[in-house]
Amino acid sequence: MKISVAQLNYHIGNFEGNVAKMLEAIKEAEKQGSDIVVFSELCICGYPPRDFLEFDDFIRLCEKAVQQLAKASKNIAVVVGAPTRNPVIEGKDLFNSAYFLADGKVKHIAHKALLPTYDIFDEYRYFEPANEFEIVEYKGKRIALTVCEDIWNVGNENPMYTVCPLDELMPQKPDFVLNLSASPFSYTHAESRIHVLKANVERYGLPMFYVNHCGAQTEVIFDGGSIVMSPNGKVHDELPYFEEIVKTYDLDAVVAGKTSQEQAKEKIALIHDALLTGLRDYFGKLGLKKAILGLSGGIDSAVVAVLAQRALGAENVRVILMPSQFSSDHSVNDARQLAQNINIQYDIIYIEDIYDEYIGALKPHFAGTTFNVTEENIQARIRGMLLMAMSNKFGNILLNTSNKSESAVGYGTLYGDMAGGLSVIGDLYKMEVYALAEYMNKDGEVIPQNIITKPPSAELRPDQKDSDSLPPYEELDEVLFQYIENRKGPKEIIKMGFDAKLVARVLRLVNISEFKRYQTAPMLRVSNKAFGMGRRMPIVGKYLS
Amino acid sequence: MKISVAQLNYHIGNFEGNVAKMLEAIKEAEKQGSDIVVFSELCICGYPPRDFLEFDDFIRLCEKAVQQLAKASKNIAVVVGAPTRNPVIEGKDLFNSAYFLADGKVKHIAHKALLPTYDIFDEYRYFEPANEFEIVEYKGKRIALTVCEDIWNVGNENPMYTVCPLDELMPQKPDFVLNLSASPFSYTHAESRIHVLKANVERYGLPMFYVNHCGAQTEVIFDGGSIVMSPNGKVHDELPYFEEIVKTYDLDAVVAGKTSQEQAKEKIALIHDALLTGLRDYFGKLGLKKAILGLSGGIDSAVVAVLAQRALGAENVRVILMPSQFSSDHSVNDARQLAQNINIQYDIIYIEDIYDEYIGALKPHFAGTTFNVTEENIQARIRGMLLMAMSNKFGNILLNTSNKSESAVGYGTLYGDMAGGLSVIGDLYKMEVYALAEYMNKDGEVIPQNIITKPPSAELRPDQKDSDSLPPYEELDEVLFQYIENRKGPKEIIKMGFDAKLVARVLRLVNISEFKRYQTAPMLRVSNKAFGMGRRMPIVGKYLS
Repeated sequence: MKISVAQLNYHIGNFEGNVAKMLEAIKEAEKQGSDIVVFSELCICGYPPRDFLEFDDFIRLCEKAVQQLAKASKNIAVVVGAPTRNPVIEGKDLFNSAYFLADGKVKHIAHKALLPTYDIFDEYRYFEPANEFEIVEYKGKRIALTVCEDIWNVGNENPMYTVCPLDELMPQKPDFVLNLSASPFSYTHAESRIHVLKANVERYGLPMFYVNHCGAQTEVIFDGGSIVMSPNGKVHDELPYFEEIVKTYDLDAVVAGKTSQEQAKEKIALIHDALLTGLRDYFGKLGLKKAILGLSGGIDSAVVAVLAQRALGAENVRVILMPSQFSSDHSVNDARQLAQNINIQYDIIYIEDIYDEYIGALKPHFAGTTFNVTEENIQARIRGMLLMAMSNKFGNILLNTSNKSESAVGYGTLYGDMAGGLSVIGDLYKMEVYALAEYMNKDGEVIPQNIITKPPSAELRPDQKDSDSLPPYEELDEVLFQYIENRKGPKEIIKMGFDAKLVARVLRLVNISEFKRYQTAPMLRVSNKAFGMGRRMPIVGKYLS
Repeated sequence: MKISVAQLNYHIGNFEGNVAKMLEAIKEAEKQGSDIVVFSELCICGYPPRDFLEFDDFIRLCEKAVQQLAKASKNIAVVVGAPTRNPVIEGKDLFNSAYFLADGKVKHIAHKALLPTYDIFDEYRYFEPANEFEIVEYKGKRIALTVCEDIWNVGNENPMYTVCPLDELMPQKPDFVLNLSASPFSYTHAESRIHVLKANVERYGLPMFYVNHCGAQTEVIFDGGSIVMSPNGKVHDELPYFEEIVKTYDLDAVVAGKTSQEQAKEKIALIHDALLTGLRDYFGKLGLKKAILGLSGGIDSAVVAVLAQRALGAENVRVILMPSQFSSDHSVNDARQLAQNINIQYDIIYIEDIYDEYIGALKPHFAGTTFNVTEENIQARIRGMLLMAMSNKFGNILLNTSNKSESAVGYGTLYGDMAGGLSVIGDLYKMEVYALAEYMNKDGEVIPQNIITKPPSAELRPDQKDSDSLPPYEELDEVLFQYIENRKGPKEIIKMGFDAKLVARVLRLVNISEFKRYQTAPMLRVSNKAFGMGRRMPIVGKYLS
């Protein structure tokens, strides 16, 4: 028997596009002589469809798409993910299902039992868990159909769940396991995935075909990396990251387990490629091409400019340099040098006159006050506004260049440097931004060395440095990581050896900045805990604040 | 036996403040000669605590607070809501529990079985449902302890759930039911609540004490309106809306069911009072006092100004009039008149010079283009920036004045009129804003009649009217309501008699504007489906767009 893995990039709600792409893949699998082609979780509608699932009209379109694909299953079995209506009145309205289509019709439907409802996942908001487990038979083989999380509770050892779907299916003696996934990228995920698959084959001794999405849906990035695993625990094949592919495997060869093939998993390289995917799909799926950003001469905007140039092409990226009286000469020179290095259009707009006009208009109302963060914010907002004006006039989407460290502590100006349609590096701590810059320079200088080595500054007042307001990033990032990613409390972080005052200050800054993060652009997610939909915090609260 | 209902306004994560308030209420109940004082769901930490629940440190503080309250239960039983750790490794880490404290210690803990995971609710993200049901005995009475949603599946007729907690408890023959709630306001909710309680007493024939929160937590508003229900289905008492109160009832009198007392439930009056609560608590709980907003002479900012003045006091509200060359005379006059009517400080800042400066700076880059939405947005953003500058300098929080109709279709400028820390009327359709204005004028003109009667306009180009870009609000609002509140699809809305082209256009505008709403301020929630945390939509999608 031959089994094809179809690792594709879907578009949420674009039924026509998704179905056309899948029909194409079915043809390709047929050409490769395959018996079964396997797609991903909820591929019909894209993942995550979120509250579209609450629309009867949307579900009807899903059903229609499944029927279209069923018709294409006359010569090859087709396994797709789609929502199913729950026929029982009690419980949630839908199941999250794997459809086994064969001989032109729906042969079997298996529902997902383990519904992730944490971080970015809201599955129990929509879906009822499976309560029955049944294998499907096809061409003499007994097949266990599972959906994503269903294989993440091996032997019931995952504390989140009380059911282990494969334990339920094993008495029916399946020959192999198919897993339809929508498993978002984080820089540790490819590793975890392989561990979980290994744990599964260790327990069940069955070949497994794990089929993931690739491509990005706004902030959520899927890396592909689908896996075919031999029953002896060898990775028979790991599909490319961030790429669409249809590849066919001989089941006997997979069972034999004689070959092994895995990809390198280097954190910064993975993040680099993930961000390119995030950028490409944000633009591509919105039907847009062109980006704009402000280039300050600092590291953050430099890294974003290079990412944009690599993802969208130099011809589609435009940068604006907007020096003020507080900008140093090297800022403009460094920014210009970078723009020239990556061959993108740059323009300079001086903001001093606009700034003076604001100060003039506000003068009668500001009488008796002195220069403070207000005037700094005015500069940042003039830049945001000029960029938005260019964006509105020419249709270039503004890329936000904030990093996770400054987002975390609220070191940024709402509607100023926090503006933009997409935050590209909002899930990278400052030290990770540096690492990414070094990575970009690995084959020759792209980002001028001076941008990497000079001390970071917002340049909103004379001789300003980030270190005037913030602890050194080496330390700050570590405290933030413990609080945000590891959800450690102040006592636990202090016990790790951090200064108590510093910890209290940093945690307080994080908690009082929720109102700012609430209004920022979606951030491409590369860590296990990004700001945005996966981290839900009260704005008005008084915990550690 | 005497039972006290303590309807209080909590502050998320403010354990010290919440406990102090509860200790005060316990004393008051003792003074009223009570045997049991009942608080609300998760009152210990405030509701919704959201991802704070994922912090071990936060849970420890909850546990400590429960112990403090237990000590105060020597002469009176105290019933409070708090999270409990799940001792079993499988399943979610916490339960959402009602604690029965008596004789100085924890006498009984009942967990919530029905975990709302829809709209603004994410309870299954954190909590494991109860799997045991046991009553507690106190002073010879058998008491059924329930938490909020637990009484919303009467006889298992709510399609969302498969368990009915009171059905499980009835064999243990309880004498009465306590329900600890955190049931957010919407303008239909007080009505629904009474229906549900009636359905419960009809089925079980038991007296019920339903204790709700009052006060607002960012966008989520609690109206109080706690209910004491007699077993004959009479509302023995309904507590005031939006007010803290501790009130004591004689159980025999409740059982006798001879009196009945309900409050009026008029939609616009409820919304008015809810918004005042929302405003007051947003400021109060952040420790702030002063608001600022732009007054355009239009209906939206007029209504927000009056709400702010009523909620915060005239001395704490400041408005800025920011006319441009496109502003009509009546706009400035109407705005000034309103400011004088409600006795708030107003200032005028002309934006034309700043606008010209921007246009000058952009001229070389805009060569060959004509005036369009870009230049309109520049005006809106100059206003947003001036308001933010005033806000930054003087600590007045900027109130956003967008309404739900314009938020829905994206008729607003990001970082311009969409700026602000809190959206006050973002959950009111335009026609509801008019109704609210009329209601404000019911005892004499507060909002100048001309503001109510003139055709709405953004005044960003000569002779602009909203009706140039949008369908009439009467029609638009109805289509939006069917799509947003009722989740009807295009076919269903057309079937109701709306023009197919109009429906397609409106639904498309809603779906392509998600990116704008993603970056707007939290909106005070008064309907059953508000934008924000209760409505989760993909940004990059292709459904109806």
